[in-house]
Amino acid sequence: MSAALSVGVAGLGTVGAGLLRLLRDNAEIISARAGRAVVVTAVSARDRGRDRGVGLDGLRWYDDPVALASDPAVDVVVELIGGSEGPARALVEAALEAGKPVVTANKALLAVHGAGLAALAERRGVPLGFEAAVAGGIPVIKALREGLAGNRIDRVAGILNGTCNYILTMMREHGREFADVLADAQRLGYAEADPAFDVDGIDAAHKLAILAALAFNRPVDFGAVHIEGIRGVCAVDIAFARELGYRIKLLGIARRTAAGIETRVHPCMVPEANPIARVDGVFNAVVAEGDAVGRIMLEGRGAGAGPTASAVVADLVDIARGRGAPVWGVAGERLGALPAVPMSVHVGAYYLRLMVVDRPGVIADVTAALRDAGVSLESMLQRGRAPGEAVPVVLVTHETNEAAMRTALEQIGRSDAVLEPPALIRIEPA
Amino acid sequence: MSAALSVGVAGLGTVGAGLLRLLRDNAEIISARAGRAVVVTAVSARDRGRDRGVGLDGLRWYDDPVALASDPAVDVVVELIGGSEGPARALVEAALEAGKPVVTANKALLAVHGAGLAALAERRGVPLGFEAAVAGGIPVIKALREGLAGNRIDRVAGILNGTCNYILTMMREHGREFADVLADAQRLGYAEADPAFDVDGIDAAHKLAILAALAFNRPVDFGAVHIEGIRGVCAVDIAFARELGYRIKLLGIARRTAAGIETRVHPCMVPEANPIARVDGVFNAVVAEGDAVGRIMLEGRGAGAGPTASAVVADLVDIARGRGAPVWGVAGERLGALPAVPMSVHVGAYYLRLMVVDRPGVIADVTAALRDAGVSLESMLQRGRAPGEAVPVVLVTHETNEAAMRTALEQIGRSDAVLEPPALIRIEPA
Repeated sequence: MSAALSVGVAGLGTVGAGLLRLLRDNAEIISARAGRAVVVTAVSARDRGRDRGVGLDGLRWYDDPVALASDPAVDVVVELIGGSEGPARALVEAALEAGKPVVTANKALLAVHGAGLAALAERRGVPLGFEAAVAGGIPVIKALREGLAGNRIDRVAGILNGTCNYILTMMREHGREFADVLADAQRLGYAEADPAFDVDGIDAAHKLAILAALAFNRPVDFGAVHIEGIRGVCAVDIAFARELGYRIKLLGIARRTAAGIETRVHPCMVPEANPIARVDGVFNAVVAEGDAVGRIMLEGRGAGAGPTASAVVADLVDIARGRGAPVWGVAGERLGALPAVPMSVHVGAYYLRLMVVDRPGVIADVTAALRDAGVSLESMLQRGRAPGEAVPVVLVTHETNEAAMRTALEQIGRSDAVLEPPALIRIEPA
Repeated sequence: MSAALSVGVAGLGTVGAGLLRLLRDNAEIISARAGRAVVVTAVSARDRGRDRGVGLDGLRWYDDPVALASDPAVDVVVELIGGSEGPARALVEAALEAGKPVVTANKALLAVHGAGLAALAERRGVPLGFEAAVAGGIPVIKALREGLAGNRIDRVAGILNGTCNYILTMMREHGREFADVLADAQRLGYAEADPAFDVDGIDAAHKLAILAALAFNRPVDFGAVHIEGIRGVCAVDIAFARELGYRIKLLGIARRTAAGIETRVHPCMVPEANPIARVDGVFNAVVAEGDAVGRIMLEGRGAGAGPTASAVVADLVDIARGRGAPVWGVAGERLGALPAVPMSVHVGAYYLRLMVVDRPGVIADVTAALRDAGVSLESMLQRGRAPGEAVPVVLVTHETNEAAMRTALEQIGRSDAVLEPPALIRIEPA
């Protein structure tokens, strides 16, 4: 048995404290699997005095996290501070520069600065682990990078944000509106006081950018991700979805197309029979489609102290065993240069809900606008009658492209019979 | 870029030919991910002349597979012959003895001789990869051994045989009997001419034994697996399952109990809301429960040339990159000695279907037998009335132990009012 792997942990919030507990509680199992003990010897956090439910006796303490990188007795640095800039970034860069392996749960950092960090890690010849950055404890990074290494990946898609999935699940199960459910979720601790990061799709987009880089072996490109959140999803859309045989999910989707790589995060209508449609509550799921393996799906808890710590330990065990892989699956010189394709050329079917004045001729105007833009309709639903007042009208299109849809929507929006901005939800086939 | 990894492949059936094709078609992707080219240079099969849809020009040919082990130009041996004895075993042993890494898809070999092979691989310091042995292309070996390395695993369960899952799915969807569906499956190539290996649960038990060894870090113990197949599942049971809110699945389950490790393969009543209940057709799924990660599920195609070749290539890429792990997750000296617990002490709820003569007093006798054995009932269903003739009676028990259930069944079986052997299906909670 080799010498212990000495770990320095920066950030002792829920996940950091959970990591310390897990490494202590399962020390024997982990050392057997790692071939050596994995021991936290140094930590850094903002408040030394706070009770975290885990003892810090005997651990070296640093007020400045970056100091962990230069502690000669630290073999590996674990970054659990969060945020794409500031001390998290400074620490990861300093540790890699110092030739120390880094493990991080920081999706924002990886999504925004991952290309440069990967190059730095490669130059210094040290591993940079980030299993915990996507889908919590589900080993999706390892599955994509190693488990499916024989495949040309054509598509990767997932439910990547538990808060959004919880909100959408509650909306469906209880017929409630977004704002009500969000307020409850905040009370219960499932959503942050400032929920923008989650509900506007940014967190999911960070994770999708990481998955896309791995799946297609190209530098991470967060800027190319088309992002829409779930604030615009209404109870009435969820009711129509049910009627049409769909469930509404916030998906992150990265797809290989003839023109390049399409990456997008937005609410989707998913056929109810699709396994991912049934992944509810705070659960995450990732579907990968490879040319040899076909479609596989991985499902589990995407957040929380236990699942995230589980993923961090998996990376630490890999480091302890000397198992490594290039950050994006291949060496920098072999990274591909497939272009990112803009959302305007996306092709798919659309769900469109309008609130229109119930008077003769309105539907004719709307359908004419769609026809003029070259969009053909698969079906139309209208519920209730209220002459002179607003009623919802739902239109489902055949496959068309986003640009045509936008042209039609602009035309439709100009009608004084259309009383609210149209709700547009893309239909994602099984 | 290092020198190419030279691969010798023994067995050129569907999977072997698929592997050759995959390594050629995706050569560029695979070499980038492996950090070096992965090239088949030598093969062995029974019939040199057969058309396999893939060219063998330029490959060294061996009539005797064991000769691959002593070809000095072969770096890694891939064994795709199958069977727990004979040439497959001889080749794997010879290759490991010669210090060559081995990759195999052979679950029977691993289940029956895995303890000895693991010891041999460790003694010679060479990797033995078997991702393809369980659940096809789903990277479940890697997930359990590396991805969940931080967890104490408490339970692993799965749909491990696609043929059985296909048959049970068809029985449910079309209300047909086992024998009919089996005959169709044989015609369509989803079941072998001799289906015993699949439908009697042996194939699933091989895979379960492997998963249990990995999950609990103990030597593989196929002999300890309790095995029942699906021949006894009747259309009427599937109909009752539906009524009770269950689906019938052949599961392999390995569970940590206070007394030791329970491993069993048998038809189960699974609550319809359980994600694994919805895994249909030829798909496989594996659920793992860890103390930190909670429950994760992996789902995909469990067989076929593409998925199996995908898993073999994953192992080859690991070898090319120098990524290794002990066969059962920990070194031999750290393997645990948790005892196997016999089925007689299993505790769970049971579905029991009897065909009884429809006459007064029969139910009283049956329920008295259960009471005498200490088994308490949760519910009873009786459908139809046919005085003096056979009618099905279904009893669902509360949690009880297998021994008590067997005692009651013996007593019940003695009644002349019970016309067929009782059908017993264990209920597996979500």
